[in-house]
Amino acid sequence: MEPINIIPPRSGTAFVLKRGERLTVTDIQGEQVSDLVCFNQHDTAEYLSSGRTIDYAETIFLSTGHRFYSNRSNVMFNICEDTVGRHDFLLTPCSAETFKIIYGHQSAHHGCFGNIANALQPYGIKPDQIPVSFNIFMHVTIDGNSGKIAVLPPTSKSGDHITIQAEMDLVVALTACSAEMSNNYSFKEIGWKIDHPIK
Amino acid sequence: MEPINIIPPRSGTAFVLKRGERLTVTDIQGEQVSDLVCFNQHDTAEYLSSGRTIDYAETIFLSTGHRFYSNRSNVMFNICEDTVGRHDFLLTPCSAETFKIIYGHQSAHHGCFGNIANALQPYGIKPDQIPVSFNIFMHVTIDGNSGKIAVLPPTSKSGDHITIQAEMDLVVALTACSAEMSNNYSFKEIGWKIDHPIK
Repeated sequence: MEPINIIPPRSGTAFVLKRGERLTVTDIQGEQVSDLVCFNQHDTAEYLSSGRTIDYAETIFLSTGHRFYSNRSNVMFNICEDTVGRHDFLLTPCSAETFKIIYGHQSAHHGCFGNIANALQPYGIKPDQIPVSFNIFMHVTIDGNSGKIAVLPPTSKSGDHITIQAEMDLVVALTACSAEMSNNYSFKEIGWKIDHPIK
Repeated sequence: MEPINIIPPRSGTAFVLKRGERLTVTDIQGEQVSDLVCFNQHDTAEYLSSGRTIDYAETIFLSTGHRFYSNRSNVMFNICEDTVGRHDFLLTPCSAETFKIIYGHQSAHHGCFGNIANALQPYGIKPDQIPVSFNIFMHVTIDGNSGKIAVLPPTSKSGDHITIQAEMDLVVALTACSAEMSNNYSFKEIGWKIDHPIK
């Protein structure tokens, strides 16, 4: 068993996930969101695309068996296990501007966006390259008639997790989300670990 | 009155829209989609962001009065008139890969993505920079419970239009969409014109 890594509340990390490796993201306490973005390790202009993925999957709720596509329509990873089944792929990472515009905060935390930007800097990936994120455990509802969205507390409980398998070599950024509404107004840590393929 | 410009079926164009100018996009025959993407004219790393816009508007169906945000959370344009009220902001422009993956075409048209890429080349904007597009008149339905999406014929009739006003200097790319399903299996032209602000 690989040891579990901890992302402290309101922070983020980045790492390489090689083709065939599996990443498990765990909600340790429950009701905590983790934003994920990823890039082709060997050409970081290729990035995870919500638009391509939703188009090909024909659903906005992605779960076990779904494949996630890049902006170039290549498969980046798939979900091989998911104990929750509800994640968001519509919204961008929370940022200082999110806190100002949505929450009215004057002195705003830099949010998942700032945490992702800092974590990706060593890989030469710039803040402007951060796309719509796959927001693991984030519970966004949509009214199909009006189009209205709402952000509810995650349905994830302590120990719930999702496992993805890389289908290309990836640089992955991952956070313990910083937005009050997304996490039922309590900031918690996120666990992650990489399992190597059995030789 | 400014003359109307025509985008022939399955093609695209790009142009500058200065702050304060209004762009009207017209569905000349009805049931024709037009994909729109835009960039800050003076720094093309700043682009139209579906994730920011949907987050701040709290709806996936954008219409009159809504403001459209960049990846840096700056307002790029707003909708000042809209005779249809149904557009998509979830999906990326159709591409050769779309036609292969969704339609099973072996010899695929390069689609709106190729048309946008060609139109943006003179502005130094690369294909990898093309984000999720605002798909004017595109009729995508969502089941709020299952998350399933479906692409239906546009509700737009001959002469229907949408008018946006730029809130920064923009490079805009616009198409007459190339995907069968999006346009009720008949490719048609799109009209557009720019009205300058009254001095």
